[in-house]
Amino acid sequence: MNGQEHGGRRITVEIKHDGAAISYDVWVREGLIDDAGSLIAAACPAHRYAIVADTQVAGLYGDRVLSSLAGEGLQGTLLKFPAGEWNKNRESWSDLTDGMLKVGLGRDSAVIALGGGVAGDLGGFVAATFMRGVRLVQIPTTLLAMLDSSVGGKTGVDTSAGKNLVGAFHQPSLVLADPAVLKTLPAPQFNSGLAEAFKHGLILDVDYFESIAAGLDDLFNRKTDRLVDLIERSVEIKADVVARDERESGYRKILNFGHTIAHAQEAISGYAWLHGEAVAAGMVLEAAIGEAAGVTREGASRRIREALEAARLPVELDDEVDATRFFEVLEQDKKRAGGHVRYTLIGEIGRVAAAADGEWTHAVPEELVRSTLFD
Amino acid sequence: MNGQEHGGRRITVEIKHDGAAISYDVWVREGLIDDAGSLIAAACPAHRYAIVADTQVAGLYGDRVLSSLAGEGLQGTLLKFPAGEWNKNRESWSDLTDGMLKVGLGRDSAVIALGGGVAGDLGGFVAATFMRGVRLVQIPTTLLAMLDSSVGGKTGVDTSAGKNLVGAFHQPSLVLADPAVLKTLPAPQFNSGLAEAFKHGLILDVDYFESIAAGLDDLFNRKTDRLVDLIERSVEIKADVVARDERESGYRKILNFGHTIAHAQEAISGYAWLHGEAVAAGMVLEAAIGEAAGVTREGASRRIREALEAARLPVELDDEVDATRFFEVLEQDKKRAGGHVRYTLIGEIGRVAAAADGEWTHAVPEELVRSTLFD
Repeated sequence: MNGQEHGGRRITVEIKHDGAAISYDVWVREGLIDDAGSLIAAACPAHRYAIVADTQVAGLYGDRVLSSLAGEGLQGTLLKFPAGEWNKNRESWSDLTDGMLKVGLGRDSAVIALGGGVAGDLGGFVAATFMRGVRLVQIPTTLLAMLDSSVGGKTGVDTSAGKNLVGAFHQPSLVLADPAVLKTLPAPQFNSGLAEAFKHGLILDVDYFESIAAGLDDLFNRKTDRLVDLIERSVEIKADVVARDERESGYRKILNFGHTIAHAQEAISGYAWLHGEAVAAGMVLEAAIGEAAGVTREGASRRIREALEAARLPVELDDEVDATRFFEVLEQDKKRAGGHVRYTLIGEIGRVAAAADGEWTHAVPEELVRSTLFD
Repeated sequence: MNGQEHGGRRITVEIKHDGAAISYDVWVREGLIDDAGSLIAAACPAHRYAIVADTQVAGLYGDRVLSSLAGEGLQGTLLKFPAGEWNKNRESWSDLTDGMLKVGLGRDSAVIALGGGVAGDLGGFVAATFMRGVRLVQIPTTLLAMLDSSVGGKTGVDTSAGKNLVGAFHQPSLVLADPAVLKTLPAPQFNSGLAEAFKHGLILDVDYFESIAAGLDDLFNRKTDRLVDLIERSVEIKADVVARDERESGYRKILNFGHTIAHAQEAISGYAWLHGEAVAAGMVLEAAIGEAAGVTREGASRRIREALEAARLPVELDDEVDATRFFEVLEQDKKRAGGHVRYTLIGEIGRVAAAADGEWTHAVPEELVRSTLFD
C-alpha cells in the first residue's frame, strides 16, 4: 500500500524475513529530519533511542533528530563513530555497543542509524546484535543510502579480509528519507547514488532508466520533486526484489548487476572508488560481457555507457586493474562464494536475464571475460 | 514427531523463528560423536565445516568429529579458542571469524559448535554473523548444554558490562547429544546441568521433577539410559516453550525461574559459581519469595531445597551476597530490562504461575524480597 501522504510518499516494504511476513514503511519527504520523532514514536516505539552517526553527520543532523525526538517526549542519545568507510569495522561496532551499555540502554531501546551506507550498515549491525537484537530506524542522508542500502535489511561490517564479511539480516522498522539533506551532498556521492538508480532501471524498468537519463539536469540541480520520484521508484523496485528473496539465495542476486566487476575495481583500488562509481563501470562492462556471451542485446552496453557518462560516472576500469590482479580478486571471491563467480546479466535494458540453468546469475567462461575486458 | 530411532531418541523442535515455522532434530544417543558425519551430511549440508571448540574439548573430541566428517567425504577445519567462561567474548568471536576467513571458508560453509555452553553460544554467534549467517550444528558435551542451552537458538558473547549482552537468535539445523561424553564430566558441571533439568520439572512437569529426585543415584553413576531419558524430557519441555516464544517476549520467560536471583549471585561472585549452581539456590529462594507473596503453595520451597541438596547443589546464597550488593545488581538489571525486574514464580511444583496482569513474570515488592532473603 503505497501512496502520497502528508505531502510526501510512503512505500510499504512487505518482506519475508526468514519466511515470515513483516512490513515497514519508507517515507520520502522534504523536512522529515525535523519530523522524525512522531513517525518513530508510531512505527518504532522504544524506551530510549541510540542515534548512531559518524562525527560529521552527527554535527550536521544529530541535534535536529534529537530535538525531534524530544518534541515527542522521546529520549535519545547520540553515539558517534569516526567518519570514513574504513571505520565500518568490528572496533566501531564494539565501541558503539559499549557506548549503549554505558548510558544504560536496555533490551527495550532502539537504534536510529543516521547517515550514509556506513552508518546504516554499522548501526544496523549494532541493532541486530545488541542484547540479541533491538529495533532499528534508518535515516539515510546520502542518495545511495536513500534509494538502495537503507532498504532490504543487509547490515554488517568489513574485516581486513574484505567488505561485509561479518553481519546479519536485520530489517528496519522504519526508513525516513529526507531529500532536503541531499542539497549539500557532494557531487561524487550524489552521482554514486544515481548509479544504483540506473541499475534498478537496467534490471527491471526501461522507462525508469530512460527517465533518469532524460532528467539529469533537474537531478543535478537537486530538484526536490525529481528526487522524491527517483527515491520512490528505486525503493519500490528494491523492495519488490527483496520481498521475493531476503537472503539473496536466488532472485535478489539480480541487484548485483555490475557488482562482480565493481567489486574487483573497488578491491584493487583499495576502495578509493566510491561504490556507485565502481558499479557504473561494472554495468557497462557486464553489459559488454553479456553481449559477447550472446545474452544481452547488441548495443545495450553502448547505451548504458552513454547514459552513465552523462551522469558523470566512470565507464571504464582504472588502468591499474590489469588482467592478473582482476582474476586474482575473482579467485578470492570464488572461494567465498563456494567455488562460483557468476555474473548478473541483462537480456536488454530493463530486463534481467535468467540463465539457461534457471539461475539468476550466469557462468561466463573466463576467456570471454578476459577478451572483453582486457584485449 | 519424536521417537526412538537408530537405538536413540530424536526430538523434533518446531519453532517459530521471527514468525516462520522452522524445525530441526535433536538426537540423543550414545556414540553420536563418532556418527556425527552422516547426520550432519543429511541435516546440514555445506561445502565445508568449521568446528569451533575450546582447546580442551578440541583435544578430547575434535579429531573424532573430523574423522566422522571425513568418513562421509566432508571437509572440516578445527578452530580453537582458549577454554574458560571469560573467553566467551568479542575477541574470541573475532578471532574465530578471522580463522574461518583465513582458511577460505565461504557463504556455503557451516559451523559446528562442539563443547559446553560457551562453545555453543560463541560458535553460534560466529555462525549467526559470518557472512550474514551460515548454518549451525550444535554438539553439546556438557549436561547443561545437552538438555538446555543447545536448544532454542540463543547465541552471544559477554562484555565487561555483563553476560550475553551481544548476540543473536540463530537456531541450529541439528543438535547431537552423545551421553557417552558425560561419563567423564566433572561432578560440579554435571550437577549444574541437573539444576536446569529440575527447573524444567518445576515449571511444567511435577512427575519429571520427582523422577529426577528419585533417580539421582543412577544419574550420579551416569547410567546411559537414565541420561537419555533426562535429556529427552528436558529438551521436549524446552522445545515446547521456545516454540511458543522464541524471542522471550513473554512465555519463554518461564525458563527464567530461579534466574533473577541466580544472576545476582553469579555477578557478585564474579561468575565463580557455575550457572546451574546459582540457579539451584535461586529456585529455592524464588520459591520462598513466591510463598511469601502468596503465589506459591506453602512447602514448595522446602521440597525443592531437599531435592537440590540431594543433588549436591547449593540451596543458599553465598555469605558475600548481602542486601546492598544484591539490590545493586538488580538495579542494573532493571535498567537493562527497561525499568522492570520481575520474577518467574511457580504456583506449585510442576506449574508456573501467571501473574494477575497476565504476564508470565511477577512484580514483587522489594521489601518482600528483602525480608525473605536477608532477614
